[in-house]
Amino acid sequence: MANVKRQLRQANIGVNEIPERWYNIIPDLPEPLPPPMDPPKGESRLANLPKMLVKECLGQEMSTAQWIDIPDGIQELFQKAGRPRPLFRATNLEKALDTPARMYYKSEFFSPTGSHKVNTALAQCYYAKKEGYRRVTTETGAGQWGTALAYATALTGLKCTVYWVRAVHDWKPDRKSYMELLGAEVYASPSPKTEFGKSLYSKDKKHPGSLGIAITEGLEDAIKNSSDTVYCLGSVLNHVLMHQTIIGLETQKQFALFDDYPDVVISCLGGGSNFGGFAIPFLGDVLMGEKGKPTISGNYKKIKFIAAQSQSAPNLQGEYKYDFADHGEMTPLLKMYTLGHQAKMAPIKGDGLRYHGASPILSLLRYKGYIDTVAYPADEKDVFAKAKLFIQNEGFLPAAESAYSVAAAIDEAIKCKEEGKAKTIAFNISGHGFMDISGYRDVLGS
Amino acid sequence: MANVKRQLRQANIGVNEIPERWYNIIPDLPEPLPPPMDPPKGESRLANLPKMLVKECLGQEMSTAQWIDIPDGIQELFQKAGRPRPLFRATNLEKALDTPARMYYKSEFFSPTGSHKVNTALAQCYYAKKEGYRRVTTETGAGQWGTALAYATALTGLKCTVYWVRAVHDWKPDRKSYMELLGAEVYASPSPKTEFGKSLYSKDKKHPGSLGIAITEGLEDAIKNSSDTVYCLGSVLNHVLMHQTIIGLETQKQFALFDDYPDVVISCLGGGSNFGGFAIPFLGDVLMGEKGKPTISGNYKKIKFIAAQSQSAPNLQGEYKYDFADHGEMTPLLKMYTLGHQAKMAPIKGDGLRYHGASPILSLLRYKGYIDTVAYPADEKDVFAKAKLFIQNEGFLPAAESAYSVAAAIDEAIKCKEEGKAKTIAFNISGHGFMDISGYRDVLGS
Repeated sequence: MANVKRQLRQANIGVNEIPERWYNIIPDLPEPLPPPMDPPKGESRLANLPKMLVKECLGQEMSTAQWIDIPDGIQELFQKAGRPRPLFRATNLEKALDTPARMYYKSEFFSPTGSHKVNTALAQCYYAKKEGYRRVTTETGAGQWGTALAYATALTGLKCTVYWVRAVHDWKPDRKSYMELLGAEVYASPSPKTEFGKSLYSKDKKHPGSLGIAITEGLEDAIKNSSDTVYCLGSVLNHVLMHQTIIGLETQKQFALFDDYPDVVISCLGGGSNFGGFAIPFLGDVLMGEKGKPTISGNYKKIKFIAAQSQSAPNLQGEYKYDFADHGEMTPLLKMYTLGHQAKMAPIKGDGLRYHGASPILSLLRYKGYIDTVAYPADEKDVFAKAKLFIQNEGFLPAAESAYSVAAAIDEAIKCKEEGKAKTIAFNISGHGFMDISGYRDVLGS
Repeated sequence: MANVKRQLRQANIGVNEIPERWYNIIPDLPEPLPPPMDPPKGESRLANLPKMLVKECLGQEMSTAQWIDIPDGIQELFQKAGRPRPLFRATNLEKALDTPARMYYKSEFFSPTGSHKVNTALAQCYYAKKEGYRRVTTETGAGQWGTALAYATALTGLKCTVYWVRAVHDWKPDRKSYMELLGAEVYASPSPKTEFGKSLYSKDKKHPGSLGIAITEGLEDAIKNSSDTVYCLGSVLNHVLMHQTIIGLETQKQFALFDDYPDVVISCLGGGSNFGGFAIPFLGDVLMGEKGKPTISGNYKKIKFIAAQSQSAPNLQGEYKYDFADHGEMTPLLKMYTLGHQAKMAPIKGDGLRYHGASPILSLLRYKGYIDTVAYPADEKDVFAKAKLFIQNEGFLPAAESAYSVAAAIDEAIKCKEEGKAKTIAFNISGHGFMDISGYRDVLGS
């Protein structure tokens, strides 16, 4: 970019330069990833997996191939979703912080539905359609995943059924209308549509529900109608994180345009899909570089990885052990950092971070010392005040969850100032906050 | 793009290929643009203009230069705002309509605040800052312009005061919080902050206000504090439309990547800033081509231009005459198609289209037969149903105003099917609807 007359504030690759393969970190992990297991008692969850998940995704979940081709059809869907998304240099924020750090943020907020969730939703729906399914089911908590799946089904010609935790469903009429505009059927959970839901709903029509209950309803619906229906999951699993590596792979190419490369890589972490998608290609560079192998980006540097979390759900500070992925114990056991699958977690605006466990891949890397974590107070005042500083300098409105990523990046930039170090800080903004503004108002009081 | 393996669904130019000049159509108009005039009676409005507007913008307003350089500082602001924005091929919508037409849409919805308004807000604030102003004032109706100006002041280090029609202000608490997050001071208008506002407010603290009253307050505030404060306007004026030509100029370069060029160019039209910004470079091609001159894009074709409007405010079907730009008669008279500056207009969700007059440049071109218009019923059922078809096929959520652009594009594509003509249709989506979802729900009833 030597012929640039003015300072580059943003860089993007061409539509033809969107990465054509996903990076699967499993073969590069420092030790083998502990496999999912059945609990000692009860029905086999593993045996049910083929009835629950899209076949191609189940294959990817277990794959040890380092690279997996992105089919042309998914590449085209990524184009329709507006990929590639620019990488921004936070020049105004750097100035406001008077930091020697160079700060860069990735713009997943430029997604059609407003979050990074569409990346795996499109992939899963593409494969589901190809395998002959006519409908997908899922659960949703905050609503971002349900919206992304509704979007992906609209683009791939599938039907979509969303079981939405009633306590959230009832106060987000706009998001519900949005899913319905996209063509989805949305049920407050527990619902009378499933046997499990009915057992609760018949006793209490205002039952607030939970993510665990909604997962159970989504799974029951898919398993009972498995001839034409399949379940989709938005985080935690290996294949979901792999689909999301498109974020980090694009970011690496964009850093080359800036002729820079990060010392610090930051994102927020609930189940791990956006943190993983952003960080895994950089983690791959580190793991390969350590072994003296050629790296993905061509760079090798010790990178500090920081997962930004809430003290409401600091799952990376939990215990590293086998646990269920859901409250209702329908899933296999996964080896992960967990707060316990029935842990109580205080409500926060960044509801997408309120999950008891971190994805097995990221948990292993945390266990091996590759990932640091910071947990912000659950009143969220610190996080939202820092997000406000970002908004007033860079002008973009982060989602409540993404505000944690912003806060951690600002904290690192302040450290750089204190230590007089000109580090390069990369952070991901996983979604926009146009539907979260009342959260800012509630926390900041204006 | 001969080496593309898959069908192109989206095209974008590089960050370094953002147009470096705005196109000023004034010297290419088929006849001289009638200048603004003073009304026969009362104080001179023209004499007040230098106290109202940024000097550089006033110069541009009168300029007869065909091209005006975009300063490096504004180019950098455009980068920070995420320009260039992709041009999408509406492949799924084409299929759903079973039309031979090729449909393309420009994605101004990928703006930081959600609309095209930021393009001129950034330019005006850049010049205001350079001229030593410390604060800008404005009015806003639906709220898009106020938000865009708040954003631009945040990025350029100015203060911002927004007078917001109380009737809208009171039911959009999220948008108000958003402007405040960006650092703006927002007053429901009429407000006690100005003499004119106070005269109304003191009699009725719940006075619903009007755009005319809010303009008057913004102007009074700027004129009274003209040592450090200036007024900014978001539409109608020549320099505003010129700043917006960045949209159409980018689009022309993107069409070259598709190896295509439009037969039909469509957008919605209230005062004219988004329609003008999108269409004027193509109108320039037509005007130059007719005279046998080299054109901007290198193409010359008879293009059909369609302005999508509401029957609530079909200003292009009004009378072509001199009229005030505001209800309160503070502005000079402009020669334009108008419904009368005190016309009553039924409320619609696409509130940004509810303006009595069309910009002088577009009015002249309409008068000379270059621009067609279509006005959709004010119940908006037809428009929103067509927008829903777009959402379910292309996945993006248009703003209520942009839904008119989508509806007109769909109508043209249906005509193409009926006539068996494979036309190329280009339409602009000026903003996203994340803050308009209740409008969809109200109109479509779900």
